[in-house]
Amino acid sequence: MSAQIKTINCTLFRVPLPEVMNDAKHGDHTHFELVTTTIFLEDGSEGTGYTYTGGKGGHAIKAIVDHDIAPALIGKDGNDVDGVYDFMEWHMHYVGRGGIVSFAVSTIDIALWDIKCKKAGQPLWKMAGGTGKTCKAYCGGIDLQFPIPKLLKNMEGYLAAGFNAVKIKIGRENLDEDIERIKAVREYIGPDVTFMVDANYSMTVEKAIKAIERFRQYDITWFEEPIIPDNYKGFAEIAEATGFPLAMGENLHTVHEFEYAMEQAKLSFLQPDASNCGGITGWLKAARLANEHKVPACAHGMQELHVSLISAQPNAGWLEVHSFPIDTYTKRPLVVENHRAVAPDIPGTGVEFDWEKLAPYKL
Amino acid sequence: MSAQIKTINCTLFRVPLPEVMNDAKHGDHTHFELVTTTIFLEDGSEGTGYTYTGGKGGHAIKAIVDHDIAPALIGKDGNDVDGVYDFMEWHMHYVGRGGIVSFAVSTIDIALWDIKCKKAGQPLWKMAGGTGKTCKAYCGGIDLQFPIPKLLKNMEGYLAAGFNAVKIKIGRENLDEDIERIKAVREYIGPDVTFMVDANYSMTVEKAIKAIERFRQYDITWFEEPIIPDNYKGFAEIAEATGFPLAMGENLHTVHEFEYAMEQAKLSFLQPDASNCGGITGWLKAARLANEHKVPACAHGMQELHVSLISAQPNAGWLEVHSFPIDTYTKRPLVVENHRAVAPDIPGTGVEFDWEKLAPYKL
Ligand SMILES: [Mg+2]
Ligand SMILES: [Mg+2]
Repeated sequence: MSAQIKTINCTLFRVPLPEVMNDAKHGDHTHFELVTTTIFLEDGSEGTGYTYTGGKGGHAIKAIVDHDIAPALIGKDGNDVDGVYDFMEWHMHYVGRGGIVSFAVSTIDIALWDIKCKKAGQPLWKMAGGTGKTCKAYCGGIDLQFPIPKLLKNMEGYLAAGFNAVKIKIGRENLDEDIERIKAVREYIGPDVTFMVDANYSMTVEKAIKAIERFRQYDITWFEEPIIPDNYKGFAEIAEATGFPLAMGENLHTVHEFEYAMEQAKLSFLQPDASNCGGITGWLKAARLANEHKVPACAHGMQELHVSLISAQPNAGWLEVHSFPIDTYTKRPLVVENHRAVAPDIPGTGVEFDWEKLAPYKL
Repeated sequence: MSAQIKTINCTLFRVPLPEVMNDAKHGDHTHFELVTTTIFLEDGSEGTGYTYTGGKGGHAIKAIVDHDIAPALIGKDGNDVDGVYDFMEWHMHYVGRGGIVSFAVSTIDIALWDIKCKKAGQPLWKMAGGTGKTCKAYCGGIDLQFPIPKLLKNMEGYLAAGFNAVKIKIGRENLDEDIERIKAVREYIGPDVTFMVDANYSMTVEKAIKAIERFRQYDITWFEEPIIPDNYKGFAEIAEATGFPLAMGENLHTVHEFEYAMEQAKLSFLQPDASNCGGITGWLKAARLANEHKVPACAHGMQELHVSLISAQPNAGWLEVHSFPIDTYTKRPLVVENHRAVAPDIPGTGVEFDWEKLAPYKL
C-alpha cells in the first residue's frame, strides 16, 4: 500500500485554565488553545500532531492547515517527513518565516513523526536521538500577579508532586517586588531546590543587569527572556556584563533565528518549543545547533512531548512542566520519578489525546 | 462624539490573475488574495485598509482580524494610531513577531490611517511626510517562465504605458538562461531605460556573485533578493565581493528585521511593503531607518498606496508597479505622468475600492 497522505483532519479546542494566570507581557490567560491534526495515509497508518497557544491565533492556525497546507499535501509521501517539512516551508514562505505558519507546520510535522515512530515500532525518545529516556524537569508558573502566599502555595504543590526545581515569573513594575518574591521563594524551597526566573522580555538591558546584581545571591540557575527575543546582541551584553546564565527560545520560530541566537546571544540554555518552531523536525534542528555550541537543549510547554525530545539528546537540558496542562488531556499525563520526567515507551510520540475529555472544548 | 472603535468588518477576496505568473521560489500564481478591513468609529468616521497575498494565508489573516484583533480593539481610541499599533504588537506577540499577524496588523493600521487622513482633510502623501507627491516607478513582472518573445511583449506593454524602468525575474536552473533573458531585455529596451533583476532568494552567495559578474555589463540598477532574506550577512558578502547594489525588504515584517538588514546587509535599496510590515506605521518606521542609513525607501506591491508613501519621503526611492493589479480594483488605478507615479490628492489614503468589481471574488 502506498504511503501517500490521504486525509488531514484539524480540530481547534479552547480549554479553560484552572485559574487566571499572568506574566509580564501577555496579560491574563484564561484559556489555552489546542490545535490537533490527525493525518491518515493511504496505507491505513495514522498519526496525531498538535500545537497550542496562550489563547490567540488558534483559528488562524487551523485556517492555514485547512486552506493552505492540507490541500497541497494530499497525495504526497507521508513517510518523507523531511521532504514534507521543506515543502511546507517554501510553500508558505511569503506569509511564513515564523508566526502562525510555524505553529501550523508544527502540528503537521508532529503528526508525521507519530506515524514514523509507529511504523518503526519505536518510542519517540529512541527515534529522536536515543541518548536516554528521562530528563531533569522543573515546574514553571505563570504567576506574576499571585500574592506571595499563593506563590508559595504553588511551590508547595510543585515539591509535593515530586519536582525539585521551580521557575517563577518576574518583571513587576518595581524591581523591589521581584526581589521580594525571589527571596520569599528561595527561603521557602530551601537551598537544595533548583530555581529559575523568567521576565518574558519585559526589561531593558540596563534593568536586566540591575536585576541580576540584586538576585544573584539567591542562587538562580538561569534568567529567561530578560529582554525581547529579537535583540540577540542585547542578550550578549547582559551576559558579558554579569556573567549570568541566560535562557531563551520559546519565541524563536525559524532555524535562522536559532542560528542568530546561538551565534550572537551568548545563551547558556536554549529553549525551543516543538509547537512553534516547526514540530519535531524544527526542534531537533535547534537542539543540534545548541549541541554544536555546547549548550543544553531545554524546551517550553508541551511537557508530554518534549520529555521524549530532551531525554533523547546528548545535550539534554531541563524540561519545563508548563502551567498549560495539555498533558492532563492525554492518556498519560507526565510521569515523574526520582525528580526526573520519564518519556513514554510506546511506539509513536506517546501523546494520545483523551478525546472525550477534550470534547466539551471543541470549537 | 467619541472616536472609539465601533465596528471592524474584514472581507477576503480571491482575485484571478489575467495569466499564470511564476517566480523562482513561489511557483505558479493564478490568483492573489485581497483582505480588506473597514473600521467605523463611534463618531461616524470610517476608513478602509487592506493587505494581499500571493494566494495563500488569506483565511488566516481574516481569522486573526475577526477572532483575535477586532474583539480586543472595540472601544479603543481610533485616533490613537500609534497606540493601537503598539497594542496589537504585544497583544499578538506570542503568535506574531512576523508572519500572518504582520499582514493582519497591516490591514487594521491602514484603515486607521485612512480615517486619520480624512479627519485631517489631507491626502496620505502629506500626512506621511509631505516631501513630494510623485515618485519614480518601474514595472515588475512575475515572468520567470515566460519565453523570451512573451517577456519582450511585456516590456513593450510597460513602455507603452508610460514607464521608463522595468524589472524581470531571474533564477532559472541554468545561469546561462538568466543571462540570455537579461541580454534580450536590455537589447529590446535600449540603453536609456532603467533595468532591475529579482531572483526571489533562489541563489547561494556564490551563485549570486557569479551571476553579477556576468550581468553587470547590462547596466542593472539593482539585484533584488539574490539569497534568503534571513541571511543579512550573506547580502553583505555579496555586496563586498562585487560592489553591486542589492535590494530587499518585501519579506521583512518587523522593525527588528529592518534594523538587522540596515545594520548588517549592506543594502543599496530598502523595499518594505506596508501590507506585510505593519501597515503605514510599520512602513514609515522602515523608511526612516533607511533614511538614517542614506538608503532610498522603495516598496513592493500595492502601488496605489505606496505611491503616496514613497513620494512623501526625503529618501524617496522607486515604486514597484507590481503584477498583482490591485489598483485596477480601485476607483483610481495608478496614475503615471512623465514616467513618474502620481499620488492621489484626496483626503485619506486615496485607495477607494470598486466593491462592485470585487464582488464576484468575495469568499
Ligand atoms: Mg518563558
Ligand atoms: Mg521581489
